Amino acid sequence: MNRHLVISSDGHAGLPPERYRDYLDPKFREAFDLALPIQLERTAQMEKLFLVDEINAGWRQGRERALSGAWDSDARNEVIDSDGVAAEVLFPDGITERNAPPFGAGFSMPSEEVVPELQWAGSRAHNRWMAEFVQMAPERRVGLACVPVLWDISEAVREVHWARENGLRGVILPAMWGAQPPYHHPRYDPFWAACAELKMPVHFHSGLAPTQDYFGAAAAGEAPTAPPPGAMGIYVTEVVWYVVRPLTFMLWGGVFERHPTLGVAITEGTTIWVPEYLHLLEQRYAETHYSQKLGDYRSHLSMSPVDYFRRNVRLGASCMPRREAELRAEIGLSNIMWGTDYPHPEGSWPHTREQMINAFCGLPEAEVAAMLGGNAAAFYGLDVEKLAPIAARIGPEKSAFQRGAQGAP
Amino acid sequence: MNRHLVISSDGHAGLPPERYRDYLDPKFREAFDLALPIQLERTAQMEKLFLVDEINAGWRQGRERALSGAWDSDARNEVIDSDGVAAEVLFPDGITERNAPPFGAGFSMPSEEVVPELQWAGSRAHNRWMAEFVQMAPERRVGLACVPVLWDISEAVREVHWARENGLRGVILPAMWGAQPPYHHPRYDPFWAACAELKMPVHFHSGLAPTQDYFGAAAAGEAPTAPPPGAMGIYVTEVVWYVVRPLTFMLWGGVFERHPTLGVAITEGTTIWVPEYLHLLEQRYAETHYSQKLGDYRSHLSMSPVDYFRRNVRLGASCMPRREAELRAEIGLSNIMWGTDYPHPEGSWPHTREQMINAFCGLPEAEVAAMLGGNAAAFYGLDVEKLAPIAARIGPEKSAFQRGAQGAP
Repeated sequence: MNRHLVISSDGHAGLPPERYRDYLDPKFREAFDLALPIQLERTAQMEKLFLVDEINAGWRQGRERALSGAWDSDARNEVIDSDGVAAEVLFPDGITERNAPPFGAGFSMPSEEVVPELQWAGSRAHNRWMAEFVQMAPERRVGLACVPVLWDISEAVREVHWARENGLRGVILPAMWGAQPPYHHPRYDPFWAACAELKMPVHFHSGLAPTQDYFGAAAAGEAPTAPPPGAMGIYVTEVVWYVVRPLTFMLWGGVFERHPTLGVAITEGTTIWVPEYLHLLEQRYAETHYSQKLGDYRSHLSMSPVDYFRRNVRLGASCMPRREAELRAEIGLSNIMWGTDYPHPEGSWPHTREQMINAFCGLPEAEVAAMLGGNAAAFYGLDVEKLAPIAARIGPEKSAFQRGAQGAP
Repeated sequence: MNRHLVISSDGHAGLPPERYRDYLDPKFREAFDLALPIQLERTAQMEKLFLVDEINAGWRQGRERALSGAWDSDARNEVIDSDGVAAEVLFPDGITERNAPPFGAGFSMPSEEVVPELQWAGSRAHNRWMAEFVQMAPERRVGLACVPVLWDISEAVREVHWARENGLRGVILPAMWGAQPPYHHPRYDPFWAACAELKMPVHFHSGLAPTQDYFGAAAAGEAPTAPPPGAMGIYVTEVVWYVVRPLTFMLWGGVFERHPTLGVAITEGTTIWVPEYLHLLEQRYAETHYSQKLGDYRSHLSMSPVDYFRRNVRLGASCMPRREAELRAEIGLSNIMWGTDYPHPEGSWPHTREQMINAFCGLPEAEVAAMLGGNAAAFYGLDVEKLAPIAARIGPEKSAFQRGAQGAP
């Protein structure tokens, strides 16, 4: 084949807010009708407060059809065809396109000031819709279920079974835990066991961070007041850290020791932190003068945290820049799964082909193939035979990656 | 001179707990008498819980005289003479040698479950003692005042004036803020102004982290129960992040824009994170596709956060390993201030000379001189003339740094 099989590790899909009503357990529809106008008003207020309402309107202008791919199956296939993408991992949406699931479900899944029963209801509404959406193009869609596992482990186990039976292929969990026990706690073991048994990888997606620290009252949804200076700069500097934190807890907590086949993906968190992170883990794992004063903290692990990372962890490398591609050996060639982040405005669409070529051109073809699709196909157990005709039709030509790098668009 | 002037950016000093009573405002002595046995019992319990009581006892065995340098002026001078150290920056102590100031003052200064009035009282007791301790060898001791600024800005301004008038040369602040506003908030401006005016650099020292996340009930001082597996591994992996966080808030908050002469030191946080951190700041500061959706977050800054870092920030590089020394250009040659961490067991003492030679040998002599002492002398405005005879007597010979690197002890 003279074209690459491309699997985006980072796509977002979700309904316009009002249309989630039909997917909601009827007993929550009254609450939904009360919450919806508040949710819409708050989103609009936040856009004004952060001076992004005009930017977002400009982004949508003339792109209405393509952006409706967030929920419209045909529109989505047109877009990913034009992007050269054969298949996608589908996270819930949020923020920019205003189509987050109800009641604070979605990829952020806040862990504070939440009514757990409602967050579960909103997650289930999304999962029901996502199962339908996947069925419209099952070979091209790896749908993820929202699972607010913090609130009820048994419910979470049932939900991952439901998701698997209904064609979903992984789960997304809250990346922050508020006052609940973090992910090194043994209470989560039954859930990890179910995910490992059912081959449902666990995902953490970048976005959540302690915004109350940055924005103060503005973040708590109180009357809009200007946040302290620099709030957004701090957010964009810190946000990657918070999507990696769950992994730190799982690695040291021995989760991959007890569940050797459990997969975890860290998505849209960049990959540039990986080499230094692994170095730090290795150093801390080694017996050092420093660690002696802190007692035994490694005898429950039979391997170094770095070994678990290499085996169990994958990186959703959204819009991977060339600098990171050049560090692929240190990051881990087989850990990298390239992604587009469509339909978010910070994603590569509608410049995906140019961006991927600029990131990867001149690198060995087999390595490019692994990062663009092979690693994801293996991680999610996808049927490559079924995807081959699609890739042969719309995939980027391998020859396009043979030239040298040029300036990104 | 054929010897280096060495200034350690990281020393710890503090009284045995019961002796702080004399330095405490009399009205808090009753509370002190109640709190002391609880504090001692809890320290002992924690040492048992983390299986370090025997390790710590082994560390102290036969070193009683040298470790009494934590509070004994003559013993301290003997130790730092033997280490080749002419002068030191003096933080409060804590943990290992069991001589933290009372009421949760000290370098950790927790921000939750604290009685602010008592934390202030404990800090003042330490500051009064530290002022005396500095006076016993003023040219060799850069004493820092504990300032729990979270609780009262006006009090903090008064304390920094008191500290300056009493011979102290900088302040240490809480590295975490709990539910109080973080350091980008304009409420701290009068305090930053006072520190800049009085040439009192602000310090954040590694150690504090969200231990409740790691250890659960064990961290909250409840009945000792075994923490979840991996708790300490997570702590040692995350702890550096938490000492850098205040800096992220100050840089983006424009603190160095409004207070261009304010100095900040980040101590015992390693320096290995610096190159990637600066790259991230630079990338986030640049106008990018990503940042556009988030509005304007940089127009209050006239320079890049990296420029403020180079100008205003110094790194207390305790026991700097050779790997970091080799990255000194990327970290910032003039930002690095080497340190020993005496008398902590993870510090370089009693192998300081070997360690510093292994870290720096073969590097250009002027660069070694800057990292070992020159940068610190400039940052703290020390009188190098007064230190020269001490360095000439006990400093490490420059010729010892001319050989190649060997295995560290």
